[in-house]
Amino acid sequence: MSKEITNRSEDYSAWYTDIVKKAGLADHSAVRGCMVIKPYGFGIWEKIRDQLDFMFKETGHVNAYFPLFIPKSFLSKEAEHVEGFAKECAVVTHHRLMNDPNGNGVVVDPTSKLEEELIVRPTSETIIWNTYKDWISSYRDLPLLINQWANVVRWEMRTRLFLRTAEFLWQEGHTAHATKDEAVSETRLILDLYAEFAEEYMAMPVIKGVKTPNERFAGAIDTYTIEALMQDGKALQAGTSHFLGQNFAKAFNVTFLDENQKRDFVWATSWGVSTRLMGGLIMTHSDDSGFVVPPKLASLHVIIIPIPKPDEAIDEVALKIIAALKAKGIIAKYDTDRKKRPGFKFAEYELKGIPVRLGIGKRDLEKNQIEVARRDTKEKYSQAIDGIEDHIEQLLVDIQDNLFNRAKKFRDDRISKADTIEEFKEILDTKAGFVLAHWDGTTESEVKIKELTKATIRCIPIDNEQEDGKCILTGKPSTQRVLFARSY
Amino acid sequence: MSKEITNRSEDYSAWYTDIVKKAGLADHSAVRGCMVIKPYGFGIWEKIRDQLDFMFKETGHVNAYFPLFIPKSFLSKEAEHVEGFAKECAVVTHHRLMNDPNGNGVVVDPTSKLEEELIVRPTSETIIWNTYKDWISSYRDLPLLINQWANVVRWEMRTRLFLRTAEFLWQEGHTAHATKDEAVSETRLILDLYAEFAEEYMAMPVIKGVKTPNERFAGAIDTYTIEALMQDGKALQAGTSHFLGQNFAKAFNVTFLDENQKRDFVWATSWGVSTRLMGGLIMTHSDDSGFVVPPKLASLHVIIIPIPKPDEAIDEVALKIIAALKAKGIIAKYDTDRKKRPGFKFAEYELKGIPVRLGIGKRDLEKNQIEVARRDTKEKYSQAIDGIEDHIEQLLVDIQDNLFNRAKKFRDDRISKADTIEEFKEILDTKAGFVLAHWDGTTESEVKIKELTKATIRCIPIDNEQEDGKCILTGKPSTQRVLFARSY
Repeated sequence: MSKEITNRSEDYSAWYTDIVKKAGLADHSAVRGCMVIKPYGFGIWEKIRDQLDFMFKETGHVNAYFPLFIPKSFLSKEAEHVEGFAKECAVVTHHRLMNDPNGNGVVVDPTSKLEEELIVRPTSETIIWNTYKDWISSYRDLPLLINQWANVVRWEMRTRLFLRTAEFLWQEGHTAHATKDEAVSETRLILDLYAEFAEEYMAMPVIKGVKTPNERFAGAIDTYTIEALMQDGKALQAGTSHFLGQNFAKAFNVTFLDENQKRDFVWATSWGVSTRLMGGLIMTHSDDSGFVVPPKLASLHVIIIPIPKPDEAIDEVALKIIAALKAKGIIAKYDTDRKKRPGFKFAEYELKGIPVRLGIGKRDLEKNQIEVARRDTKEKYSQAIDGIEDHIEQLLVDIQDNLFNRAKKFRDDRISKADTIEEFKEILDTKAGFVLAHWDGTTESEVKIKELTKATIRCIPIDNEQEDGKCILTGKPSTQRVLFARSY
Repeated sequence: MSKEITNRSEDYSAWYTDIVKKAGLADHSAVRGCMVIKPYGFGIWEKIRDQLDFMFKETGHVNAYFPLFIPKSFLSKEAEHVEGFAKECAVVTHHRLMNDPNGNGVVVDPTSKLEEELIVRPTSETIIWNTYKDWISSYRDLPLLINQWANVVRWEMRTRLFLRTAEFLWQEGHTAHATKDEAVSETRLILDLYAEFAEEYMAMPVIKGVKTPNERFAGAIDTYTIEALMQDGKALQAGTSHFLGQNFAKAFNVTFLDENQKRDFVWATSWGVSTRLMGGLIMTHSDDSGFVVPPKLASLHVIIIPIPKPDEAIDEVALKIIAALKAKGIIAKYDTDRKKRPGFKFAEYELKGIPVRLGIGKRDLEKNQIEVARRDTKEKYSQAIDGIEDHIEQLLVDIQDNLFNRAKKFRDDRISKADTIEEFKEILDTKAGFVLAHWDGTTESEVKIKELTKATIRCIPIDNEQEDGKCILTGKPSTQRVLFARSY
């Protein structure tokens, strides 16, 4: 397989797919719309998962596991939920195969038809609230702060690796509270947690906001979101946190006795991020040479390459550096493959996005120095071997910061204001990015703007500036600009 | 819900279910045969998973993720595999629901029928070897040492929480090698790893061995197993490691060029343990007061209870102890709930199996001592507060050892020898446990013995003693005894 990747400017979509496949992150599978997450990509997902899991637990959440299948009838219990969700999904109708009477492998045994079809979970609110009914009876059982790491299936027609696949991995939090205030606070706590994770670990700047009614999760009172900007100027919804009110509690009859022996329905939230984050990570930092991984999510921080090939003196220095780095929690590897030339290895690790490359040559060694190359800026320089571990420790911090600052500048440069629909379209067609514009607050106008421009309201930013203006579509009065973009 | 649990001697099966449900480990769900793993149970599964994952990575394995669905036609590609597996499974036939024209919720959209049905993976050999075909072309791509943590579904007719559920969680390793020897070594390496984990972490003694052809995994050349003994004298297969030869490579045409440019089929292994281990853990150590968790898998090691209720002096001592234990990596909690009496709390934590309980009362404090109670032996004694953290650190080691030694003695006392079929039946019906007996090596006799006694050959132990004898069924000559038991 050629390691050449398409240039972004030539074909952005091909560039993305090239990076995902050629850096060894994921691949298409034999099953329509389902991907295989390859070891290198899965190692990065494990870092994402472990850090988020740590943050969930630090804020008092625990993990549990609920069934993969949902009885079909559950989906229609919450009226709005079924409208928004229950359509494109994998339906299990039978539970047995049998040998084909004509001798062609196996066929479905028609006598094994299920009485009620089972749906492979597209999300788990219904099965979980049906369970919570048995777990909650008093205020003492609350709050219930549960998260689940799981696979879910939504039968998407147009799929893209990581960004939109029929099966994906995610976490879904489902919490139950005694009061509305507490549930709203939980929704916001998780929104902040997601934003902190995106910015501090993924080095991906995000805008926090609330969705319009039209873009809300099916069954939610309010959906909060973090929105990131990709290099093609399109927005990516990177995580959502929903305040569900008492909708699911009412649908599944989950009540509790409060401290005054008064019975009330329970208040709910749900929230999730998925392997889609991998797509956001790739499209935020990568370049025409390949993937770029922020040090905090790298499974390998430093690659050491002997130039032109390993020998005893070089081996000794390399192993010393690896040990010194390991003591600092930095993972380094020494590539001793004699069959590949240094130039080939350089390209290989660049493609994989390893943050730092060290080259050790004979002449360098004589001067007690080695070559340091950073992946983010591609800068190269000589550095004294003495104290190299401290230098690299700081360099990794610098790379993490630089990736965030670079992405933030890119994003900030692409937040525009538009006051007319023509200006709005002009910006989207040329500079792209986020556009702040006045909107009259109706779903009708929102839908019409989407039809005309393919842009949607990504969110109403938190603490949004209040400003009188006129809707770019209808000219009706508006009190604030909202954040539009074309999106994934 | 009553916390009373059935006595083992009264109804072993009810005792088991009581512990699983009342200790908060798992529960039945609304979906036939699928369980909900509750937070306390899931926390222990996380410990199991994390330790195994660490051991897999230490031995060079990496994680990846493959699709949940398997195209129906894949299952029939390996002839023996389909015979052994493909029958009872969840079959996805449609990909869309629609509103019921009669207004009754949702129904399956008949126009969304899939061209080829998808099977929810009962195990992933087929989809993985279909993928490996694209990943392997040269000896340089080998070995491929990949593991996956996933959910799988087998449509079991009779289910029991953790032990046999339609959906369960597991890990499945799938490795590819250039030589037969290397693949056999991998199979044995994993067998040893599983045994080490079972004995060192679960404190569950196991017998390592190889399965008879009749009990082999469908498609394997050899299946290795670890077999444990439960308190009712039944065996539990706790983990298996399969040498697959070139069967799957041939079925999916996975070949490689060796160093001499010769093309050959790849050699394979697969291996797995599942949430069934939770069942083994419960049935190895628990007693009539509830669950007993070995310290190495406990999510909470020490519970501190104020007697009769918290006050300033007791709080101070408790918090100091928690901090001192934390510094040693021991997790302790202080239960300050004023609404529950100490006796109620004692029973509660006993039911949950927390290894050590500390009681702090006023009179004890005056003497600078506290009460220590260990869960495994239920022994109670006073201990000086000074240096309590060192005492507990050692106590947890002792409890872990005691649990293993106790279980090993129980198991060893229940390994019997039988020389006739009558003696064989007599042992199974009275003492139960493992029975070593001669067998003529034929599947016919094996099946007949099972019909007569409900006992199966659990394995031919590794390094089995060679001894001339006569098959207990047919009287035909035999060179070794094999390990029989009734089993889960």
